[in-house]
Amino acid sequence: MTGSIICVGLGPGDPELISVKADRLLRSALQVAYFRKRGHKGKARELVEGILNTNATEYPMEYPVTTEIPHTHPDYGVMLHNFYEEWQQRLSALAQQGDVIVLCEGDPFLYGSFMHLYIRLREAALVTVEVLPGIPGMVGCWHATGQPMTWGDDILSVIPATLPAQALQHHVQQADALVIMKVGRRLPHVKAALQAAGKLEQAWLVINGTMAGEQVMPLTEAPAHCPYFSIILVHGHGRRPGSLD
Amino acid sequence: MTGSIICVGLGPGDPELISVKADRLLRSALQVAYFRKRGHKGKARELVEGILNTNATEYPMEYPVTTEIPHTHPDYGVMLHNFYEEWQQRLSALAQQGDVIVLCEGDPFLYGSFMHLYIRLREAALVTVEVLPGIPGMVGCWHATGQPMTWGDDILSVIPATLPAQALQHHVQQADALVIMKVGRRLPHVKAALQAAGKLEQAWLVINGTMAGEQVMPLTEAPAHCPYFSIILVHGHGRRPGSLD
Repeated sequence: MTGSIICVGLGPGDPELISVKADRLLRSALQVAYFRKRGHKGKARELVEGILNTNATEYPMEYPVTTEIPHTHPDYGVMLHNFYEEWQQRLSALAQQGDVIVLCEGDPFLYGSFMHLYIRLREAALVTVEVLPGIPGMVGCWHATGQPMTWGDDILSVIPATLPAQALQHHVQQADALVIMKVGRRLPHVKAALQAAGKLEQAWLVINGTMAGEQVMPLTEAPAHCPYFSIILVHGHGRRPGSLD
Repeated sequence: MTGSIICVGLGPGDPELISVKADRLLRSALQVAYFRKRGHKGKARELVEGILNTNATEYPMEYPVTTEIPHTHPDYGVMLHNFYEEWQQRLSALAQQGDVIVLCEGDPFLYGSFMHLYIRLREAALVTVEVLPGIPGMVGCWHATGQPMTWGDDILSVIPATLPAQALQHHVQQADALVIMKVGRRLPHVKAALQAAGKLEQAWLVINGTMAGEQVMPLTEAPAHCPYFSIILVHGHGRRPGSLD
């Protein structure tokens, strides 16, 4: 019996926002893999606590390196290369015994870690690979603000805060609605870019969107430090037929 | 007994991609409202066929006008204004008897029609209003292509094809990954903008993403005409640590 590798998007954090299909797969899963940082349980694994089949064998895929060396260092690329190659082979071997479910927060195709395995699994072509969409983390975050994100002809841009300051500022200026990801230590740069674009007063900071410990606040009231997985949002205010303004 | 108005995001089209929470609400719903065009069953209503509680009383909210007069015509705004005001009042009255579920395709806060009622319901403040996130239609569409959408530092822009040609071209040029919504009759303009940005060859057209009748093709092989709800995608190719390129 040969199985498939099925990566399931788990959504923004609230287990009730997992799709009906993903929920069913998790409850019947016998082999489950997920990425995690060494010494941590893993965010994706925490999300499925109480849903995951208790008979499942778990395969934590522990990153060999996260922020210990800069990602521009040649060793960083080599270590990750070996790590992804190894897990591509291990998951393919496991799939010979039956389906392997890979857990992924948010939507797997939107900045997801699984994509690095996905392209290798497709190239090796030893097993079938399926990916189930999930509600992206950013969608959970804009719901946490209780405000619609885009209207009519609004342009929405999703921008990593890790961009160089000038590029960040340029792109912040261009769009009507903004999602700025991976904020963390880049908070001062993001604030400066929003200030320069005249958008600082309209920006919101969301920490742990839809999860326990969720915090939502105007960016002007943000603490000096915030976690890597914080998101900054600027809502669009586009065309609204019927508003009679 | 006073109920709430709960708008549920239904996701991109596959009923299995509805969230566990939305699925449960639909199965127990006794009052259900949804937008539709006159003479149609309604896309959101079709999506929940077989899931919706058979005892539910249905309230189709029929648009007084869609494309019969241009949205710049003063009558258009007045007609929609009256329509939204009327349904804000009717839904608030219905909620006095118990919960009212409002169906919404995709994610309600991403270009969703419910937002026009949402802002009015919040202003009137007669009943509590809740909105459940869903997988946006565009996420379903990029999964239909089987290719990851954004990597590393990619910038993703979501652009309505209804923008003026020059603005469309400008924004198409700026981003790494692109989602172009509401294509329909604007197909030639979108193609021209992508051509000018050197992105035509990488673009994909998705028609009816994740639904019956789904069609996925390179944009260069697109038919001369496509429906309004078609989406054009250009995938990002950002930083991929471990690729050793």
